[in-house]
Amino acid sequence: MATKIVLALVISLLAYAATGAEENLRPCRSSAEQCRLQRLRTLEPTRRIQSEGGLTEIWDPSEDELQCAGVAAIRNTLQPNSLFLPGFHPAPLLVYIEQGEGLMGLSHPGCPETYESESQRELSRRRSFSRSRAGGSQEQEQRERRSDHHQKVHRFRQGDILAIPAGAVHWCYNDGNEELVAFAVMDLNNQANQLDLNFRSFFLAGGEPRQEGQRGERGTSRQRGMENFQSLFSGFSEELLAEAYDIPINIARRLQEDESRRGIIVRCQDEMRRMIRPDEEREDQERRWTINGEEENGVEETICTTRFRHNMNTLCESDIVSRQAGRIHLVNQHKLPILRFLDLSAEKGRLFPNAIYTPHWSMTDHRIVYVLRGDAQVQIVDNHGNTVFNDRVNRGQMFVIPQFYAVTTRVGNEGFEYVSMKTSGQPMKSPMAGYTSVIRAMPIDVLVNSYRMSPREAQDLKYNRGHQSFLLSSGRSSASP
Amino acid sequence: MATKIVLALVISLLAYAATGAEENLRPCRSSAEQCRLQRLRTLEPTRRIQSEGGLTEIWDPSEDELQCAGVAAIRNTLQPNSLFLPGFHPAPLLVYIEQGEGLMGLSHPGCPETYESESQRELSRRRSFSRSRAGGSQEQEQRERRSDHHQKVHRFRQGDILAIPAGAVHWCYNDGNEELVAFAVMDLNNQANQLDLNFRSFFLAGGEPRQEGQRGERGTSRQRGMENFQSLFSGFSEELLAEAYDIPINIARRLQEDESRRGIIVRCQDEMRRMIRPDEEREDQERRWTINGEEENGVEETICTTRFRHNMNTLCESDIVSRQAGRIHLVNQHKLPILRFLDLSAEKGRLFPNAIYTPHWSMTDHRIVYVLRGDAQVQIVDNHGNTVFNDRVNRGQMFVIPQFYAVTTRVGNEGFEYVSMKTSGQPMKSPMAGYTSVIRAMPIDVLVNSYRMSPREAQDLKYNRGHQSFLLSSGRSSASP
Amino acid sequence: MATKIVLALVISLLAYAATGAEENLRPCRSSAEQCRLQRLRTLEPTRRIQSEGGLTEIWDPSEDELQCAGVAAIRNTLQPNSLFLPGFHPAPLLVYIEQGEGLMGLSHPGCPETYESESQRELSRRRSFSRSRAGGSQEQEQRERRSDHHQKVHRFRQGDILAIPAGAVHWCYNDGNEELVAFAVMDLNNQANQLDLNFRSFFLAGGEPRQEGQRGERGTSRQRGMENFQSLFSGFSEELLAEAYDIPINIARRLQEDESRRGIIVRCQDEMRRMIRPDEEREDQERRWTINGEEENGVEETICTTRFRHNMNTLCESDIVSRQAGRIHLVNQHKLPILRFLDLSAEKGRLFPNAIYTPHWSMTDHRIVYVLRGDAQVQIVDNHGNTVFNDRVNRGQMFVIPQFYAVTTRVGNEGFEYVSMKTSGQPMKSPMAGYTSVIRAMPIDVLVNSYRMSPREAQDLKYNRGHQSFLLSSGRSSASP
Repeated sequence: MATKIVLALVISLLAYAATGAEENLRPCRSSAEQCRLQRLRTLEPTRRIQSEGGLTEIWDPSEDELQCAGVAAIRNTLQPNSLFLPGFHPAPLLVYIEQGEGLMGLSHPGCPETYESESQRELSRRRSFSRSRAGGSQEQEQRERRSDHHQKVHRFRQGDILAIPAGAVHWCYNDGNEELVAFAVMDLNNQANQLDLNFRSFFLAGGEPRQEGQRGERGTSRQRGMENFQSLFSGFSEELLAEAYDIPINIARRLQEDESRRGIIVRCQDEMRRMIRPDEEREDQERRWTINGEEENGVEETICTTRFRHNMNTLCESDIVSRQAGRIHLVNQHKLPILRFLDLSAEKGRLFPNAIYTPHWSMTDHRIVYVLRGDAQVQIVDNHGNTVFNDRVNRGQMFVIPQFYAVTTRVGNEGFEYVSMKTSGQPMKSPMAGYTSVIRAMPIDVLVNSYRMSPREAQDLKYNRGHQSFLLSSGRSSASP
Repeated sequence: MATKIVLALVISLLAYAATGAEENLRPCRSSAEQCRLQRLRTLEPTRRIQSEGGLTEIWDPSEDELQCAGVAAIRNTLQPNSLFLPGFHPAPLLVYIEQGEGLMGLSHPGCPETYESESQRELSRRRSFSRSRAGGSQEQEQRERRSDHHQKVHRFRQGDILAIPAGAVHWCYNDGNEELVAFAVMDLNNQANQLDLNFRSFFLAGGEPRQEGQRGERGTSRQRGMENFQSLFSGFSEELLAEAYDIPINIARRLQEDESRRGIIVRCQDEMRRMIRPDEEREDQERRWTINGEEENGVEETICTTRFRHNMNTLCESDIVSRQAGRIHLVNQHKLPILRFLDLSAEKGRLFPNAIYTPHWSMTDHRIVYVLRGDAQVQIVDNHGNTVFNDRVNRGQMFVIPQFYAVTTRVGNEGFEYVSMKTSGQPMKSPMAGYTSVIRAMPIDVLVNSYRMSPREAQDLKYNRGHQSFLLSSGRSSASP
Repeated sequence: MATKIVLALVISLLAYAATGAEENLRPCRSSAEQCRLQRLRTLEPTRRIQSEGGLTEIWDPSEDELQCAGVAAIRNTLQPNSLFLPGFHPAPLLVYIEQGEGLMGLSHPGCPETYESESQRELSRRRSFSRSRAGGSQEQEQRERRSDHHQKVHRFRQGDILAIPAGAVHWCYNDGNEELVAFAVMDLNNQANQLDLNFRSFFLAGGEPRQEGQRGERGTSRQRGMENFQSLFSGFSEELLAEAYDIPINIARRLQEDESRRGIIVRCQDEMRRMIRPDEEREDQERRWTINGEEENGVEETICTTRFRHNMNTLCESDIVSRQAGRIHLVNQHKLPILRFLDLSAEKGRLFPNAIYTPHWSMTDHRIVYVLRGDAQVQIVDNHGNTVFNDRVNRGQMFVIPQFYAVTTRVGNEGFEYVSMKTSGQPMKSPMAGYTSVIRAMPIDVLVNSYRMSPREAQDLKYNRGHQSFLLSSGRSSASP
């Protein structure tokens, strides 16, 4: 009993919502316009945009599942030494780094430029002049002009979740040796978005290449999928830009158009050596320290110093661990405070071959599940008891589990690895089998009468799974006495 | 003057919203899709589902009033010794117990099973074996297997309001001697519901009987009323269920289908003697103690120990009392803290014959009014000054008062008793006549010029009702001097 | 650097959202139904309602911009000694006083009538009777009947923003010598409104004059603009009103209809001399004191004593000041706490000739901009890089800047003065040029690769505007070294 209470408390703190005092702080979200979910499908991206430095794949936002969940999904692949151009989105974004590593800039208006570097010109200049000459205020000014200050740059690598607020400019640079693959979900139905639920992206540079074939594809695709990426600057008059930045008009023109149509991911000319990169090890150390020392209360952090990144592969932070069945790692607003404001969270699971994810439903959120490795048989059931989804899902595929719909997963022979994005900052699941299930919570009398079984059978139903919860090991155990 | 300030303070605390610091904690709710309210009607349930153990009546969710308010309404009648099968809803539910008494289970994932009982088998076993033999850990294990643990069971009786969160499994059992009648409103437009506004129910057992006549009826009813109650289990494959629960496949089949089609309310085989019931007297005592001792702050309560029940008949907790006109009992988030999270509240009124409920509008919520006894003439006026409702309402009928619409009620000769469910956890009304009315708040000069009356007439308009507020006694008083 | 940090902090506190701990208190707002914004337009009112004492002009609520922003806009002109009749709206209102001054009553149910005056009759009576005769309780009662008590009356004048909660009755009286002109935006998509997004007004007196021409005009206008102002009282039966107020039926009839059809603004018979007016000077002094002394924490204020008024012309409270380019005055929830509950804010700008408002987007809100004086060239760009708005705007015109759309303004030769209403209580802008811009926040390497420019050009782009932020002075500065 005591074990159970402790387990319940731990699970409550980690995985479930503290539905008590904190729930009133939960941001709001309106109900979907229409959920036509007679038949759910495994979804793959339908639109591909080839840029100079990589590939952008977009799931069709007009799919019924995505419209019900109010989200859009994108996968970006960046070649080494390529830059995803700066831009922003009208809704918060959760990004999972499937492969590779890189650097992300996330700009906030009003935050100071705390990263200071020296430009190459300054470096070469320093070689020819002795440092003793510096000191006069004019010299100081010139030096400041040539050294570069910029806002914080964040290192990320495979297994990271990145949380990006609505309207915040961000860019990504692949400084690794392999392709960088990032899967992202945009929460269009978020309260931060006061525009409609159409998928939109706002770029500050670049522009989508206008290829013949692709134009045709766009023509036939439905309205909601027709987003065409172009730079915001191209809509302003060049005279106004020149004056706003106090630059010559030929440079202003450079802001506006990119005649080579390199797309939204560009190959970099050199390897961005001027830019200061975070000392990774120290950043991680610091983070771990604040978590363990409970120094992190979400209040003392301002938006300028908040964390946007959480690694989902850290073994010691797994929330559900079963030696027989696998592990689950959750990240919610308690682990990554920015998620409270974005009202989103994520889960990464690594399930062993033939394990079963207990039948359950989500009380709080839609889930967008993206398969990372292996395969599994997934069954989703609606309120009429219909099996609306019963597919084998594989790597690179995505499916949506609507709120309240019951789901269970049986892992294949290779194991199963997935990441799921959830439309709530405080997600809560209700399991149907196992130690923390609703069946276990009910009196035997209720089970006996609900299912017309004997008290003995009802006891088996309640207790046969013993202390297993969420992740159930495969194979029938020995019969109970 | 001082009386008025005190009255204002008391009313503010009890009946009105503390629009100050607490309002920012109010959960959110989006505006209705479309409110076509040229003509409101008295509504009666249009669909009847006969189950083995009782009757379910559903108001047509496609009615304009219900769609504008974003709610659905249901009435369940349970025979004695019958069980409303376990299930949950995609939105919070407020239930009023119109008649009878019973037990409710409300399961929360992660909450401990704090009710411990011994199964019948254990009881009979104990008779044959002496207790001294027990002691070994294997024996202990076996004993634990046979005694039953379950989550808290709540006693409710006539006059209670029950608050049920979205996605939380609940069941009800009529252990009384008379029929149990419960009227429920489901708040589909609540932020807890991320599905669309269609009426849905998710059951863990049972299934709606498929009768011929009823099938036809469903075919002709509009889409939104076509909810068909079936168990979630029937959508999973029986092999998967057998494995998930670690039970033989023939018992798993028992979870799935109910070939006898007993419906969603079943007659119980015995009287659920194994189940532990709460000691009612002590529960009530405890509740009263915490209220008076102000020990209840909504923070120290976790979701596992929170109260879900409030009795609306307790005379000493009435909020508005008039010797001539009747009494009104309100329950909002201050009295029942769970209502803060559900963003719902309720009011029960017991008005004397010929009393008048002052003309007023709600500043915060739609109201769904259900008539319990007697009759009254109700007038509702829209923003164009049109009388959109002017009906005599009787027992068992329901009507909707849209937010901001002005309404007044004149009780018939038999008196009038009603319960109304409100789509706000902190409801606030603005009366048009009486001590706390907007007319009284305005300077006489404004009344004189607004209504082209003499200052004397304006004074009569403001002051003739004296200290009466909300509930106005019948019959013209003697003329004022 | 330090300057910048301080500037950043100051700006964060004043103009930007404290996206940290406070954001979770932000009221919610759902996304727009549909934003068809291929082409934005300068909007002028399309419907005119002439009342006895003034003119009401309404912008067509079916305009795409207004539907996307979820707002309605109205301009009222009151003749001297005229009264805008008491009524309320189903959504919060922000009002800007463009010209003149007056008195506003804002009634809250339950708030005490703290303004006490003596009626004229009482005044004349006092002359004939000596005061020494008073003293008996009956006499006291009579005296109380004749003196008038009413709720607080607020003085407002040109340059004020008034914030009016949903459902709160308010009236306005022009006691000045010139016309009173008020521009108002109603936030229909606010969480306070549970009706649909149609424009509605609820009046307690008066009624729109039914002229022939106007009736025809209404017939051709689209549904959403067809609001017809009539008194709520006209929908109740006169018997019921007579009884509710305990007044003779002929006075009750006076509440209901206004056969002369004076409209919703009436000319007053005398100059409302009976009504107590606030001592203006002391009110202002008090307000300033609480702001400087930081006594104002939003908690100790109850709804009965809260401030609803903020003057936008007070020079010493400007938030952005540039000697070359002008000043901007913001009012958000930190300056006027009631805005936290209304989830609205406002900005007033007074820009010098030829100044530039930096290209920027709003991260949090739609803006409804109303031109007060002068003219400016405004460019608005959408996510496809299309110039959706490129017009010269003039006095009395209105335009909408959708959330996330980039906008820049170039002031004409006469200067430019505007007020803009924002659909967020904590608005945040992201500038594209200047000291706090996203361009400045990015490393030079990112700019070099994004825009294919030399490091030298990227430095010019980042630093040429020096310390200027938001408001940019006109004319090219001397070239940088």
